[in-house]
Amino acid sequence: MDVHDFTHDPQRRAWIASANAPGGEFPLQNLPLGVFSGDGGAPRGGVAIGDRVLDLRAALEAGLIEGEAAEAAAEPGLNRLMAMGRPASRALRHAVSALLAEGSEAAGRAEAALVPMERARMHPPCAIANFTDFMVSRDHSMRLGALKDPEAPLPPAFDSLPIAYHSRASSVRISGAEVVRPNGQWRRKDGVHFGPTEALDYELEMAVWIAGENALGTPVPMARAPERIFGFGLLNDWSARDIQRWEMPPLGPFLAKSLLTTVSPWVVTAEAMIPFRVPAAARAEGVPPPLPHLDSPANRERGGMSVALEVFLLTPAMRAAGAAPARLTATEFAWMAWTPAQMVAHHASNGCNLLPGDLLGTGTCSGPTEESRACLAEIILSGPVGLPGGETRRFLLDGDEVILRGRAHAPGAVSIGFGECRGTVTPAPDWPADE
Amino acid sequence: MDVHDFTHDPQRRAWIASANAPGGEFPLQNLPLGVFSGDGGAPRGGVAIGDRVLDLRAALEAGLIEGEAAEAAAEPGLNRLMAMGRPASRALRHAVSALLAEGSEAAGRAEAALVPMERARMHPPCAIANFTDFMVSRDHSMRLGALKDPEAPLPPAFDSLPIAYHSRASSVRISGAEVVRPNGQWRRKDGVHFGPTEALDYELEMAVWIAGENALGTPVPMARAPERIFGFGLLNDWSARDIQRWEMPPLGPFLAKSLLTTVSPWVVTAEAMIPFRVPAAARAEGVPPPLPHLDSPANRERGGMSVALEVFLLTPAMRAAGAAPARLTATEFAWMAWTPAQMVAHHASNGCNLLPGDLLGTGTCSGPTEESRACLAEIILSGPVGLPGGETRRFLLDGDEVILRGRAHAPGAVSIGFGECRGTVTPAPDWPADE
Repeated sequence: MDVHDFTHDPQRRAWIASANAPGGEFPLQNLPLGVFSGDGGAPRGGVAIGDRVLDLRAALEAGLIEGEAAEAAAEPGLNRLMAMGRPASRALRHAVSALLAEGSEAAGRAEAALVPMERARMHPPCAIANFTDFMVSRDHSMRLGALKDPEAPLPPAFDSLPIAYHSRASSVRISGAEVVRPNGQWRRKDGVHFGPTEALDYELEMAVWIAGENALGTPVPMARAPERIFGFGLLNDWSARDIQRWEMPPLGPFLAKSLLTTVSPWVVTAEAMIPFRVPAAARAEGVPPPLPHLDSPANRERGGMSVALEVFLLTPAMRAAGAAPARLTATEFAWMAWTPAQMVAHHASNGCNLLPGDLLGTGTCSGPTEESRACLAEIILSGPVGLPGGETRRFLLDGDEVILRGRAHAPGAVSIGFGECRGTVTPAPDWPADE
Repeated sequence: MDVHDFTHDPQRRAWIASANAPGGEFPLQNLPLGVFSGDGGAPRGGVAIGDRVLDLRAALEAGLIEGEAAEAAAEPGLNRLMAMGRPASRALRHAVSALLAEGSEAAGRAEAALVPMERARMHPPCAIANFTDFMVSRDHSMRLGALKDPEAPLPPAFDSLPIAYHSRASSVRISGAEVVRPNGQWRRKDGVHFGPTEALDYELEMAVWIAGENALGTPVPMARAPERIFGFGLLNDWSARDIQRWEMPPLGPFLAKSLLTTVSPWVVTAEAMIPFRVPAAARAEGVPPPLPHLDSPANRERGGMSVALEVFLLTPAMRAAGAAPARLTATEFAWMAWTPAQMVAHHASNGCNLLPGDLLGTGTCSGPTEESRACLAEIILSGPVGLPGGETRRFLLDGDEVILRGRAHAPGAVSIGFGECRGTVTPAPDWPADE
């Protein structure tokens, strides 16, 4: 992979003015892929650029882009492009960057293939085959582990492998999906209880989308793991803590998580992230290096990513008062103890087959600072959250809206955004009477 | 549902002689559905009858069966039939039973739609959307839980809900798939180690296939749960115990399970199982009844199923000596502490959407007796397994073949079989060098 790829040149500008606005999320250096529908049209692939979406179907029909990668990317799901692997998405990026750059001869004709972003209805970027959720923040694991065992807060294997569990693919939705407060079972002082969760939480994570496929029984070594990453997004792993605590021993989280998982609809490709790669986080003091199957020179040098991540909360009272969302979390992905490539290599180390369109969650991206606690369960360890207008929160109440944002940043590079990952909590359904 | 449905009449015989042989697995009362291909043909739906497979595509084209359910069942996957819900599979069962019964006027013409079972290559019965594995045997949970805490061997929630975890859909295969010994990481006396598992085990489970769909956020009450069960099969949840022990805390099993899961290719429909329903197992002494959302009169009366389940082992030495497979396990599904309907209602109680083609594993079906221990981890608690020819086993060695069998039985009913669920262990791959 060429880190001097022309598409990353910070001097390059688009002929779409909004893409060149300082601090915008979707400059010419980003070009994230997604699936959208315009006014009544069918879902199709698109690329976010400034405040527009490039309709890849229209661009293909107009002859502005061509080839198998472009055809795959124009489909109503990115699975085929993901299956084609990284060279295909690299070729597509080059073509789209050339098309949208200042000086492009096709600019006049391409204008017709642009849709205003506010008129684009987003769809899931692909059919999600499997969803695996990791837990790679040492700080998150320490803070919550200390509640169970202050002497040994970290799981025994934490520093030896990226801990993960299989999660639920069917309940993954894109930003904006309604967060229906789940009913569930847990133990209270008065006995085992079933009813609406009283401890609904968010978890700020990054999403990792998988490219290519390894046959069942065939591992993916570290040297090949980066090629298996198609791109990245934001992920909110909504969690019901009361249900979780009760159901977890010994098989792990189940209904506490499968109520809903929300992802941002735009996939920031691995190509776009090249300028934001950083060395893998330093191992904690006294912790030996990973075993060889989870280690590589490339991973040590550039396995990490610099992404500033934030969570905002807007309550119904704040909304009524016209207040801005309050920031609850500000953290950094580069702090994570394991890299995306290590997640892939570990996941496939037993021969498990990873499929195009598989989704990995990184786990809650908490860091060492107070403001970097990336879920309420951690934040309220020091008491309820104070909000503008005098409100407080321990867990989420009906009507609360949670907004995740992310921005990749590096010295000398044009920073790029991930769009938003939003969700508003709605009341639990009445439990259906047994007919 | 009519328990006096004519398709269950024990007097009914097929015009295919092998289907009437005493003790056969696939009499006229069974009619399990599967997907197969004949000599070079494309995969299509079929029904097992005696030592034949009724080719549903051919039967449809010959006008022997008709309608939307038959068309859906003839496809190369049963997902659409599963989506149509139980009335569709009931209608299909009636039509096929009439076609294959002695006295059928179409018998002559139907002969051409029969394929010898030994020439039918089986395929997965459907595209598996999601796979969830339960743990509903109290005996299994007690025996293995006692290794960690002899004072409190059962998970706290065991008697309050059917414990489960999300497992891996991509690594589910049908009977006959190669069991590649996985590499993995665990802690040994000499430190954290990565290499081929030294504790490969089988787990005898039943498979539950889901019909219909509930929207995300919409629970399935107990009264509706039985309608969401399309059918049943056998499931081997291959497990690497050394990897499992190390990776489990706190998020549960991950790579110890996603190496492979094997299911039997024939789906015994919920309709076929009606004569074998029994009351839900009695609650253990002193255990209160389930909370109302996991209870119903119908479930108490007929939520359980009588299925005798067995595991056999054939080692390379036994194979060379011409010995018959040795039985390691003989157990009974009716002993399970939670019923399939309770699994469905619990799974959807948080609003999680269950999809047509979703797979539930029941968990290891161990019972209270010595011979009903349904995995090696339990069996070897009393020492290594002795085998014909003087061999012993603790865990599975390369070349070992494990065979699951099951048979539903009830007084006055014609017992029906589930076919086989087989797998042979092959050596671990050399760990790929880091290129």
